[in-house]
Parts: sequence; structure tokens; C-alpha cells
Amino acid sequence: MPYRAPVDDYAFLFDHVVGFDEVQATERFAEASADVTQAILTEAAKLCDEVLAPLQRPGDLYPARLENGVVRTSPGFAEGYQAIAEGGWVGMAADPEYGGMGLPMTLTTAVNEMMSAACLSLQLAPLMTQGQIEALEHHASDEIKALYLPKLISGEWTGTMNLTEPQAGSDVGALSTKAEDNGDGTHSITGQKIYISWGDNDFTENVCHLVLARLPGAPAGTKGISLFLVPRNLPDEDGNAGVANSLKVVSLEHKMGLHGSPTCVMQYDGATGWLVGPEGGGMAAMFTMMNNARLGVGGQGVGAAEGAYQHALAYALDRKQGRTEGETAAIIDHADVRRMLMTMRADTFAARGIALLCAAAIDMSTATGEDRWKSRAALLTPVAKAFGTDIGNEVAAMGIQVHGGMGFVEETGAAQYARDVRVTTIYEGTNGIQAMDLVARKMMDGGEAAYQLMDEIEAAAEAARDVLPELAEPVWQASESLRETTEWMIRQDHRVRFAGAVPYLRAFARVLGGHIHLASALQDPKGPRAKVATFYIQRLLPDHNSLLAQAQAGDYDVYALTPEEFAA
Amino acid sequence: MPYRAPVDDYAFLFDHVVGFDEVQATERFAEASADVTQAILTEAAKLCDEVLAPLQRPGDLYPARLENGVVRTSPGFAEGYQAIAEGGWVGMAADPEYGGMGLPMTLTTAVNEMMSAACLSLQLAPLMTQGQIEALEHHASDEIKALYLPKLISGEWTGTMNLTEPQAGSDVGALSTKAEDNGDGTHSITGQKIYISWGDNDFTENVCHLVLARLPGAPAGTKGISLFLVPRNLPDEDGNAGVANSLKVVSLEHKMGLHGSPTCVMQYDGATGWLVGPEGGGMAAMFTMMNNARLGVGGQGVGAAEGAYQHALAYALDRKQGRTEGETAAIIDHADVRRMLMTMRADTFAARGIALLCAAAIDMSTATGEDRWKSRAALLTPVAKAFGTDIGNEVAAMGIQVHGGMGFVEETGAAQYARDVRVTTIYEGTNGIQAMDLVARKMMDGGEAAYQLMDEIEAAAEAARDVLPELAEPVWQASESLRETTEWMIRQDHRVRFAGAVPYLRAFARVLGGHIHLASALQDPKGPRAKVATFYIQRLLPDHNSLLAQAQAGDYDVYALTPEEFAA
Repeated sequence: MPYRAPVDDYAFLFDHVVGFDEVQATERFAEASADVTQAILTEAAKLCDEVLAPLQRPGDLYPARLENGVVRTSPGFAEGYQAIAEGGWVGMAADPEYGGMGLPMTLTTAVNEMMSAACLSLQLAPLMTQGQIEALEHHASDEIKALYLPKLISGEWTGTMNLTEPQAGSDVGALSTKAEDNGDGTHSITGQKIYISWGDNDFTENVCHLVLARLPGAPAGTKGISLFLVPRNLPDEDGNAGVANSLKVVSLEHKMGLHGSPTCVMQYDGATGWLVGPEGGGMAAMFTMMNNARLGVGGQGVGAAEGAYQHALAYALDRKQGRTEGETAAIIDHADVRRMLMTMRADTFAARGIALLCAAAIDMSTATGEDRWKSRAALLTPVAKAFGTDIGNEVAAMGIQVHGGMGFVEETGAAQYARDVRVTTIYEGTNGIQAMDLVARKMMDGGEAAYQLMDEIEAAAEAARDVLPELAEPVWQASESLRETTEWMIRQDHRVRFAGAVPYLRAFARVLGGHIHLASALQDPKGPRAKVATFYIQRLLPDHNSLLAQAQAGDYDVYALTPEEFAA
Repeated sequence: MPYRAPVDDYAFLFDHVVGFDEVQATERFAEASADVTQAILTEAAKLCDEVLAPLQRPGDLYPARLENGVVRTSPGFAEGYQAIAEGGWVGMAADPEYGGMGLPMTLTTAVNEMMSAACLSLQLAPLMTQGQIEALEHHASDEIKALYLPKLISGEWTGTMNLTEPQAGSDVGALSTKAEDNGDGTHSITGQKIYISWGDNDFTENVCHLVLARLPGAPAGTKGISLFLVPRNLPDEDGNAGVANSLKVVSLEHKMGLHGSPTCVMQYDGATGWLVGPEGGGMAAMFTMMNNARLGVGGQGVGAAEGAYQHALAYALDRKQGRTEGETAAIIDHADVRRMLMTMRADTFAARGIALLCAAAIDMSTATGEDRWKSRAALLTPVAKAFGTDIGNEVAAMGIQVHGGMGFVEETGAAQYARDVRVTTIYEGTNGIQAMDLVARKMMDGGEAAYQLMDEIEAAAEAARDVLPELAEPVWQASESLRETTEWMIRQDHRVRFAGAVPYLRAFARVLGGHIHLASALQDPKGPRAKVATFYIQRLLPDHNSLLAQAQAGDYDVYALTPEEFAA
């Protein structure tokens, strides 16, 4: 059974759970009517099912490779990419002034999830470009926008993000790539960047790098970082890709998965670049790109989960093993296989809902400019990223387990989901970094955004009490427990918060997942959605208790061992 | 920092936690004195650190391959295997009458764990042979024993286990390989077997297959299965490997990991075999081999966890990133990295303790013949297998996460631990099968063995209350909760038990882990062991609550969706 994009699930979540009607009611997104939404989802699903999904396996078997300094992509990727570009999917959320569709992030998030389920390694290319588009829309000069945005939005050119250096990963402020003013409006960029996803390809005329670098005399740390646009080919007078810039791909990483995506070591040797945003404003501009990409990576996790779930489900429906009342049974009849499949389904749905809630908040923020939506989006971004990618990993691992011995054998494809999705908990800020972001930066408002969300969760649970008391009550209780821990957390110093950050984020997501499942069950109190919600609320939501206990465990036990005792 | 076998940890667990003094006090294992034990551990550690660990990476990079029907093993594996054989490590637990050392399983389990930490794919070869030795010791005729055991124990020949067929995996009873009586004391074996670990190699004179097959007219299901010994080369008059038997390796699987271990599809074309045990007694004999192997596989999980932990710890101590009070800090100073490393360390210790508790029960059963020890060993085997391998996977995944981006890149070796250990939750009975074994077969005694263990856990916790009240109390409480769920579980039918089996097993292991950590802390109430125990009991033990809630959730929610609703 090949991948089939869960169009009904998105439509259901839009209509009944994540408040997409509010988004559609804004002037900014008025064009995203129900009909348009359905048409977009249907069209994107067709692309994913028919064009992209068949590229998943070749991307693994025939990795991108470097030949004489040129990246050669996996078989079929060029055609797959063209189909994405021609469908307008790269620029679906981008500014119509430059050729974008101006559609909501909610819809973009759904389409991105489908594409990542179908072929994660290829989807990473347009995802990076989308982040670059948003960064340029917000921070670049009109001249740069006019030159680059149409090419990026149409997919003729791709974009990348260049942060990491060998000594500067999570600690971006430690980077040492240099920029020098050429006195003609351009800068010369010199340095090495690593882990550059889709740092090059053989199917677009140009690849545009957004590079973090330091100007001479810039202060140490993140305040001294500026952002530069450095294209592989310098635009000529007509704005087309011209002569080669002074940069090259030095090597590709040999990775555990995502073989179809070339992960490049990039060398800049006095490459020509253009400042984006103010001097020293590099981190702010890069955060625009990263926040976009963080939600996108969360969606990659959800997509991989959906792909792995469908793959395992098809196997479980087909594979005969053991007997039920004398008949040889498909393994889906075995209780533990059921438990795994239900867990996969319920968690994937929860993670999808969280990603879409985050996206809807971004849309409302864009449309209304209201702080409450901005704060909501900021709050949910690390949760969507970390929980989506954790679930991607967990569901893919269960997918292997459902396959039994066949899961460990590469030809079934179950293992590839697990290998590919593994990086998503790491890139765009590790999930540990996301959790620290949640308990520190995102709670600088004293928890206001978090409490508002809990108020809504509890109001919804109270409203649901008459219809579904056995589901509403545990969600309400879980939210109260989360509130208490949040109140405690906010009183702690950063080290204590950080020692509990990861379990806190997970508990936060567990509660949100309960809220989403409850809303889903209300629409279908006797049907399949309520059954999945019951499973989630009965079996998975209780996790929040031990997670919150961990979140409040303090830092003493974490730091009790000295480094010497560790190493002894 | 290369792998260094945790000799002190084994010695500590022997002396203070798992009751190895009782084993040493038996007549059967009187020779395993403290001096001998220390010497064995030290010698084995030397082999693992110096000879086997350097083979880990080559085994991944240069997989075993099939050339013209002959398996070619990874570079260095032949020499590594010879070192294992010459050290006597294959037959360390085997009967001295046939050349074994007759040492306790407790000690063997520690040595096997070290070897799997150093090079999992190679260690699987002697592990399979050990299982075969035990099966032959218990079930083979004196003639077969005399001919085969010395060769297997010395490591001159290796042994394999042939259960699975394409249509018969977890459902072994569905197998269709045929055996026909040749009328001369031999049988002709015909059929195909898959997933045969180390089905061939290029470094031993012979490979001996234990093959499950059906005699003509045998009843359907497991009762109709007999066990046959089928050597690759037929022994000649002097008992040496002679002419080739009618069997071959058809192909090797392309796997996610464990590349150094050839996983063979075996074809038997009227191959000559010898019946082991009575006709129709194949499953009983195979269970001897499997129980041995199940504990061994649990130990593989622990070994992989230890290897991944040491690897990640070395990276965390070395890698500079971010600042603590103005200084650029090694990442071990970051709270979440600490949390991960402490989790890895605490869980690895718990899983190691459980494996050794199980092994000690096996030894006591062997030495005393007492039913209580036999039941204890039977009860703990699925727990040791499933928890050890789950922890192996979880710790290896965290090991990648500690490495950040470097973890996804193969050259660091972090990813290999995760890929290699992935199969351990699947082979020798999936962890779902282990959990079903625990809640059904292992509780046919009405829970007696389980309650006895809980009595001991609670008595120990009570005794510890004065010294370490804050650790003793939660362990006592957790054991009581486990007892209540066990009482409930035993009243349920099998489908309900199976729907909660996996979380129940995990909770069981969590409580046992608390018991082990508490015993460890008592020996060192202010030292590093108590610190790790505090982390475990405060942060990880609370999981048992939500796990027990899941265990008691019943089967309704698991079976609520129809297969049609699943597929919709």
C-alpha cells in the first residue's frame, strides 16, 4: 500500500480543531476559502502520492554525491523538484507581490507535512527555501527582494541556511566566518560552514546561501553577527544566474539517513555577498528563518510518522501470523500490534494538531498583528518542533517493531523512515534547545501566553464535560497539573528550569494533544475519532504525571556527579 | 576515548546487589571464587578493550558478503573470533567434561555484555554457539555430545539456530521444513530458513545448524516440530569436518545495522541431520536454546547501551559549546546534556543489574535444582531481554542526541550503536512476545514467583528505610503498586493481559531497577552510586505509575477500531 496523503485529517483539523475558520475570516487570508483549501490539499496530495513518494527509496539507495566539486542528486530528484516548483508549492505562503500564493501557514504546514511523508530528503530543499524567502521578505532591501524573491518563490533558485561551523553549533555566537566590506555595497565572505542541507544541487540555476558572519571589529558572541546573502552564481544584469561566486562544496557528510539530501561542507573564499538587515542584526534575521524552519521541521517529524504509520499498518493488515479462534490471523489482530498501531496513530494525530495550531497562530499573528497571537505562535513553535520530531522518531521505531524481522531489513523501507527522521530532533536547534527556549525565552512574559492557552484548554474541557465526561475530566486535570508546574517553573532560576525543560515540554505537548483529541472526539462521539481519542487520553495522556515530576526534580540530581566521577 | 569494559561495575553488582555470594557458596560453582572472578573479568576486559572494540567500525563499513555461495566476513573478524575462541570465552559456562570452564551464567553474562559492547556483530557468533551448546547438553544423545560439544566449546566450530521461515516467524508452529527418516539414524532435511544469524563464516572449520522441522505425519502446530542438528560439513571418522552437506547460503540480508553479522537465507536440500531430543520435542529443546539466547540478547542491549554511553560521555567531556559563567564550557556542563547522560547511566546500570539477577537465578537453579530459583529465572528472562534491549535502543538514541549534528554523521560511530542494537528488540522473540510470555506463561503459577520477588524488594526497602528513607520509600511504594496491578492482571483473560503486557513488563523492570539502585546506594550512601540511584528513583522510577495505568487499561480501546476503520 503506497503512501496516501491524509487529506481528510487536515480538513477535519482545519474545520473542527485548530480554528482555521478564524484564519479564513481575516482579510489577509480571505482567499483561502473552503473550496480553495480543499482544492489545494487535493492537488498537493496528488503530487505527493504520485510523484514524490516513488522517490523515497531511490533517494536512500542512491545518495547524493560529489563529483569533481559538483553535487549529483539522486535519480528522479530533479524531476520531483521541478514538479514541486511548477506546482507553486515552494512559494505557497510567500508574498503575491513577488509571485507567491499568499496562502496561510496552516495550509502550507499541511502541504509540507505531506511532502515530507512522501520524500523527506527532497522536501528539505523547498523547506529551506521557504525559510529563506521569509527571512528576505522581513529583512532584505527592496533591491534584493526584487532580484531574489521571484526566483526563490518560483523555485528556479533554491535557498540554504549557513549557521554552523565546526566549533559553533548550538552555540552560534562562537562562529568565526568573516565578512569584509568591499566598499561597493558588497562584502567578501570567508570561512567554512558545515551541515549545509542542500548546499548544492544539479537541478536549479542558482543556490542562494544565507550566511552568518562577523564584520571586522564586531563584538564577540551573537551581537557581532551579521547576515549575508551569498549566491552560488552572481546575478547578471538581467537578474539571471551569472558567473560563479568564490565558494565551493568541499565534501558531503556520510549520514545515518536522509541520503538523498546533500549535507555539505561549504567553503567561502572571499565570496561576494550582500548584507541582509542591519550590521549585527544577523541573529534576528536568522531567527525569522529558523522559526519558520522549526515549525517546518516539526512537520517533517509528523510527516515521517504518518509515512511510517501507513507503512506499518499496510504490513499489519497483510501479514499473517498466529491464530485467532482457529483462523490464521493478520497480525493486526494481535493485541500488542494493535497497541503499537493505535499509539502511532494517536500520537501522529496529536503532533499534527499541535503543528497546525502553531501555524494557525502564525497566520492570526500575520493577519491581525495582535501580540496575543504572536506570543501564541512563539510559545508553540518549540513544542511543535520538539514533539513533532520526537513522535516522528518514536513512531518510526514502532513501525520497525510492527514489521518484526522484516523491519530490520532495508528492503521493506520501514528502517528508512527511522534513519531519515533521526536528524529532525537535532537540526534547526536540538530538541534540548527547543525545550530551553520554551522554559526561558518563551516564558519571559511570566507565563502569560502559556496560561492563556491552558485557560482555553480548560474552558473547552469544561464545555465537553456533559457529552464526554470520561475524556473531558482527565484533560482538564492534566491542564491543571501543567499549570501548577508552570507556576513552579517560572519561580526557578534558569539552571533548574533547564534541568527539567525536556520533560516539561513533553508534558506540555501531552496536554495539548489531549485537548486536540478531545476536540476531535466531540465531533464524532461514537465514531473512529472518539475511539482514537479515548486511547490517547486513557493510555498516553497519563504520561504527563511522571513527566511533570521530572520537570520539577530540580537540578541537584542532574549535577550531583562531578565530571571526574562521570569519567571514573 | 575508546571502550573500556566496566569491570568495577560487574564486581560491585556481584558483591553487593545480585547475590553472587550465594552462587559462589554452592558446590557447583565453588571454583568461581572472588579471585577467579576478578581474574576472569580482567582478562575478558582486556580482550574486549584491545582486540574486539577496534573491530566495531570495520564491521559496519565492510559488511559480511556472499561470494559464490561463500560468506566472507568483515576485516579482522577472523582474528577477533580466534581470540574469543582461544580465550575459552565461547565455552566458559559449558560442561567441563567436554572442555568447558563450568563457570556461572552470572559471570558469562558479564563477559558477554562486555563483548557485545565492544563489537556486537561479532559477539553474536559465540552467543549463538553458547545457546546451541546448552541445547545439546540438555537434549542430545551422548554420541552427539561427544562428537560436537568439544568442537563447539573450543570454538573450532560455531552453532546457529534455525527457526524462522518466510511464513513462520513469531508463529513458529507454522513452519514447513521437512525431515524424513533415512533409516540409518539420520534424517534428510529439506526447506528454507531465514534470518539465520552467522549462518556461515570463513573462519571456522564447520558451522552446525540446529534446525526445526516436521516429520511426516506430524501434527500441525508446535507439537509436530522436531529438532535436528545439521552440520555444514559432515563429521568424518575422526570427528573432523568432512564432506559438504546438502545445504547452502542463498543470500544475505541487507540490514539497517549489524553489518558485520551475516544474516543468511539457508536452503536445505535433503541435508543430513540428526534428531536432537524426542520426535515432536523440538520446541522444548529449542526453548532451552532460546532462553539462554534471550538473556544473552538482553545483555547485548546492555552492552550496546554501555558502549553508546561511554562514547557519548567522552564526546560530552571534550566538546566545547556555550558558556558557563563566562568560560566556554564542555557540553557536559549543560543541564540537558547532563540529564541525558545521567539517564543513560542510570538505566544502563538498572538493565545490567536485571540481567545479572536473572543470570544468578539461573545459576542457583542449576546448582540447587530448586523450583523457586527455576521460577525466578523463568520470570526474569523476558524482563531481562525486553528491558535490556529497550534500554539499549533508548540509550543509543540519546547517545546520538548528545552528539548533536555529529551524531547523525556516521564517522563518529554514535549512529552505529543505534543501528546495530535496533534488531535486539526483535530477534529471539520480539519484545511484545517477551511481554506476553511474562503475563501469561510466567504467571501460570498464579503470580507466585512475581510476588516472592516483590516480597524481597519490599523487605529490602523496609530494611533501607532508616539509612535512605527518601530512596527506600518510593521503591517500596512502587513495588506495592506493581503488586496490585499483578493481582489485577492475573484475574484477566489473555487478551486483556496482552493489551497491557508491554507497559506491564516495563513497569516491572522499572521497579526492579529501583530495587537494584537502592541496593547500590546502600553501599555508598554519600558517593557516586547513591547519586545515580537518586536520579533513577526520583526521575525514572515514577514512570511506573503511567505504565501501570496503561497495563490496566484493558483491551477495549485497543480493539475499538475495526480493521476497516484502520484502513479507511
